[in-house]
Amino acid sequence: MVRVAAVQLAPTVGDLAGNLAAARAAISGALEAGADLVVLPELTTSGYVFESQEEARALGIPRDSPVFAEWAELVSARPGALAVVGFAESGEDDLLYNSAAIVGAGGVLGVYRKVHLWDQEKLYFTPGSAAPLVIDTPQGRLGLMICFDLEFPEWTRLAALAGAEILVVPTNWPLFPRPEGERVAEVQIGMATARINKMAVVCADRTGVERGVPWSGGTTIIGADGWVIDSVGEGTGVAWGDIDPADSRDKTLAGLAHAFGDRRTDLYGGVVQEQPRS
Amino acid sequence: MVRVAAVQLAPTVGDLAGNLAAARAAISGALEAGADLVVLPELTTSGYVFESQEEARALGIPRDSPVFAEWAELVSARPGALAVVGFAESGEDDLLYNSAAIVGAGGVLGVYRKVHLWDQEKLYFTPGSAAPLVIDTPQGRLGLMICFDLEFPEWTRLAALAGAEILVVPTNWPLFPRPEGERVAEVQIGMATARINKMAVVCADRTGVERGVPWSGGTTIIGADGWVIDSVGEGTGVAWGDIDPADSRDKTLAGLAHAFGDRRTDLYGGVVQEQPRS
Repeated sequence: MVRVAAVQLAPTVGDLAGNLAAARAAISGALEAGADLVVLPELTTSGYVFESQEEARALGIPRDSPVFAEWAELVSARPGALAVVGFAESGEDDLLYNSAAIVGAGGVLGVYRKVHLWDQEKLYFTPGSAAPLVIDTPQGRLGLMICFDLEFPEWTRLAALAGAEILVVPTNWPLFPRPEGERVAEVQIGMATARINKMAVVCADRTGVERGVPWSGGTTIIGADGWVIDSVGEGTGVAWGDIDPADSRDKTLAGLAHAFGDRRTDLYGGVVQEQPRS
Repeated sequence: MVRVAAVQLAPTVGDLAGNLAAARAAISGALEAGADLVVLPELTTSGYVFESQEEARALGIPRDSPVFAEWAELVSARPGALAVVGFAESGEDDLLYNSAAIVGAGGVLGVYRKVHLWDQEKLYFTPGSAAPLVIDTPQGRLGLMICFDLEFPEWTRLAALAGAEILVVPTNWPLFPRPEGERVAEVQIGMATARINKMAVVCADRTGVERGVPWSGGTTIIGADGWVIDSVGEGTGVAWGDIDPADSRDKTLAGLAHAFGDRRTDLYGGVVQEQPRS
């Protein structure tokens, strides 16, 4: 059983030192409370609403930054524990990426660069071009993607087909109006993604208002059955969930129904391209 | 604007005459109440829980059955009106299909054969092998698929990419336990499908208990924004919704974000096949 903590933070754009301190406190606090897997939001280190490319670039962190060793040191306090943190990445190619890292006691296990950039992120970041990160860890086989990536079922399916048992999704969901009593729309998508793929989904969102942009506070842990285990709601806080990766391994839906086996791969050749109108 | 009526019925397995009478009454009633598009459940004519292949086959209807002309006559009462009805289809190849037809005043506009058969349906039906039906009609460009098909995002994406403005989904959703206050799980999937593809989704479900199988009563009309317009709940009844097909045509999500344009088709080649574990 994996004890998951999804931490909802309110990073401040431009305040790298303050954001790093908040990330450190969030990771330590969750580990002390028993977390095996701590997930922090997208762009935890930099904040989100940049005013210029110069500002964004100045907030980038390279992969050999000492912050990763620091996070590795933090998670070493608990055997097998992992932290997942979203950060603005200064690439070795001098480009800026919207990235997230999985960090264990031994250091960085993997980094994913967001492939589907949302709206004005396109002004600041270069999109990634690698598949969703899916790797075996002490906490099961983890998949990693970021925010808007979750809204492309081709992408989440790829992670599921690669064997992801827990899909980890650091996010920054801007707040949009929704009907009274409804969940954040992206959480609905996360629930459907979990159920369709029989794969747990963990979303760590941000909260607060940054340069006039309000955030959803949609941090939610979803089981492989598609139902919400815990969520944070407004303000900062932590959602907790116990996830058994084995629940994601059996894709049986009923005696003769199977989430993967019933896929008609003979008919999906065209799904990757626009179809001609008949 | 298309005035949609999704009708929740309780067909009786084996009672072809009674089910046809109920379908007739449902279509007429909805048209009289102002519907432009009337959607009835999957297997409205036959019922669902068959005890043998012989029973299922005896309930099949060929495409040249006079019932289609009768439904065409009914919808001719209202200019441009359409009825969508699920039925067990006796194929010209002597096989049985789980099908649905779109019927206008001039007759059958198209028939779709369910591709993803759920569980024991595999004992009775032959799966279809054609793409989701997507056709231009007086009520906009309609997509048509059936029940479990909706749970394969490859399939719903294909319909959306083919230009479906309203995805019509006759269903028979067996009732499964769900947490207090939650919607039927398949409705969650319908909401995510609508939002991801910016496409209205209309699900007409059945209700009641048939040979020990209880049904969900999940009839729901969902707008292209992913939010529920109307649903029926328990028992028979009609969900109503006014849908503007134009809302499904513009796939813009934000100034620089687009539901289709942001797809990374350069990276999805592998989505149709199982991925090797890295």
